[in-house]
Amino acid sequence: MKSTSRVQTQFLSAQDVTTLVTRLGLPAALNGIADYIKQDFLRWQDFDKCARVASHSAGGVIELMPISDAKTYAFKYVNGHPKNTHVGLPTVMAFGVLADVATGVPELLSELTLTTALRTAAMSVVAARALARPDSRRMALIGNGAQSEFQALAFHHLLGIQEIRLYDTDRAATSKLMRNLQHSGLRLVACASIAEAVRGSDIVTTVTADKTNATILTPALIEPGMHINGVGGDCPGKTELHADVLRGASVFVEYEPQTRIEGDLQHLPADFAVTELWQVLGGHATGRSSASQVTVFDSVGFALEDYSALRFMRDTALALGLGQSVSLIPELPNPKDLFSLVRPGIQELALAA
Amino acid sequence: MKSTSRVQTQFLSAQDVTTLVTRLGLPAALNGIADYIKQDFLRWQDFDKCARVASHSAGGVIELMPISDAKTYAFKYVNGHPKNTHVGLPTVMAFGVLADVATGVPELLSELTLTTALRTAAMSVVAARALARPDSRRMALIGNGAQSEFQALAFHHLLGIQEIRLYDTDRAATSKLMRNLQHSGLRLVACASIAEAVRGSDIVTTVTADKTNATILTPALIEPGMHINGVGGDCPGKTELHADVLRGASVFVEYEPQTRIEGDLQHLPADFAVTELWQVLGGHATGRSSASQVTVFDSVGFALEDYSALRFMRDTALALGLGQSVSLIPELPNPKDLFSLVRPGIQELALAA
Repeated sequence: MKSTSRVQTQFLSAQDVTTLVTRLGLPAALNGIADYIKQDFLRWQDFDKCARVASHSAGGVIELMPISDAKTYAFKYVNGHPKNTHVGLPTVMAFGVLADVATGVPELLSELTLTTALRTAAMSVVAARALARPDSRRMALIGNGAQSEFQALAFHHLLGIQEIRLYDTDRAATSKLMRNLQHSGLRLVACASIAEAVRGSDIVTTVTADKTNATILTPALIEPGMHINGVGGDCPGKTELHADVLRGASVFVEYEPQTRIEGDLQHLPADFAVTELWQVLGGHATGRSSASQVTVFDSVGFALEDYSALRFMRDTALALGLGQSVSLIPELPNPKDLFSLVRPGIQELALAA
Repeated sequence: MKSTSRVQTQFLSAQDVTTLVTRLGLPAALNGIADYIKQDFLRWQDFDKCARVASHSAGGVIELMPISDAKTYAFKYVNGHPKNTHVGLPTVMAFGVLADVATGVPELLSELTLTTALRTAAMSVVAARALARPDSRRMALIGNGAQSEFQALAFHHLLGIQEIRLYDTDRAATSKLMRNLQHSGLRLVACASIAEAVRGSDIVTTVTADKTNATILTPALIEPGMHINGVGGDCPGKTELHADVLRGASVFVEYEPQTRIEGDLQHLPADFAVTELWQVLGGHATGRSSASQVTVFDSVGFALEDYSALRFMRDTALALGLGQSVSLIPELPNPKDLFSLVRPGIQELALAA
């Protein structure tokens, strides 16, 4: 593989990104991605935004999530197949691309399975910094699957959460989380019910995987001052919050048109008021206004977060010397002469005939 | 790189596909792709179709083109930047993916720059077989850029065209084509004007690159019985045919909702009658009904053609032993334990702290 040409694409494999995160340390990686996300949300108007393009099937969904500013185009491929774990595969797998808007050259191709878990947790913290009570120390974590440790560590290292109260319908998932985070410095409490986990928590993070209209949180469970970080309700027919939980709270979203379709918000009328988070981050709207207010971040995952995460991975991989060049686009001495690629073969064919 | 695991993705680089086409021979590759396209168009109803998602900028466009049946999902990334050749880059660059609908696993990642030229030419022939007069021997080829040789050879080898009449505003492009195809067996005639190229031709192929509303073909140029293969008018604001050329012909399209927005059809009212090509191929609609009828294939390039081309490349690469495995998706002993990827680093961090 050549590495000098401008049509080479930088490839970050799953191993490369794993190495990157391990070398940097997970807290630094989460913090770096959170910084990139915040930078990009602060220039929200620079982006050409659209809802993702989803292809639904009986077993799950495959989505493409494009976004662009004047300089850089990004897209993510991501699936969601809740039953994948039964056949030994992750529920969510992803990869993505950064391309140059001026020429269309795909400059970076990167794994995004691990990265999506990091950016989702980083996004949750960016929102919670604006919406949760500053003295939050205890978080309930409902759903202890593939993304749960990243949420736990992001809230621990970036927001000061000290105790996490765990619940999952699959007890093995909770045990796995507790093993994984035994040296993290977090106090981990396995709970027998959602109610037990939620009671007395400052923040409630829901990150369940079932593709169903569930009511993980009902109004009876909600206490004044709570911040609800709703992560798992992220596509039509996949929700986690009772509609009255939203009605009793101030609701914040990433990109309103998408969240109305995909978020827990899908159960509420189109005129139910919500605030886009970039407005709070930029000082254009109020986030939390009192210690007793209930806030909800109805997170569905927006393409801009992947744009930010891909930028972070590209910059960090460059600094650490990770990744390799791949030939996704042909090298042409004369770009108007695509045929030159196959001409020698044709000439042989003509001579042989 | 491991090669045994089910979450490995097969990667066909630009070099791999070039080798594949060279080994197979271009006529066989074009013929194979045309067969795959026809097979897939004959089961049109099996596909979940949507218009492509385009991101327009001053210099061009970047598009994602997804499509799926019950078993396989495909998408293509493709740009169109007419001024790229000024900076030594191709106007059109592309890559694509085949994924398993049941699990979301991306099974194939392939270059599609060369492949797009092949599949576009193969699609043109699939349409012309149904729409052009069977005794067609002479073709005008307006626009002698990167895709032109593929069009010329596809019509020569797959449809029996013997003479090609060439015109391009850039004489160097025509010279390049004539050099490239000097051993092809085609009679090549460089013409001084569009009118000279078109006069007496059985088929007229337009494959120009300018992103503008051009009128390459006007009604005065059209002769009874001609088949017009309009390839270059393929996005909003980029057309090649005078509206009256369409009004005076029977017009056939790939996927009507997309062509109304992107094709030469964009200049005609929404109720102007057109026929989707799959209906002709399947015997549900009439193609050419007389030797004097003028037919137009208003081609814009539809995601299904890339699906077919990706299938062809996957099958052929497997048969020829081409390509390599890449780790786009992480390998997880326990798919619910994504965190296991970075756990060792965390433990080191905790021990060091």
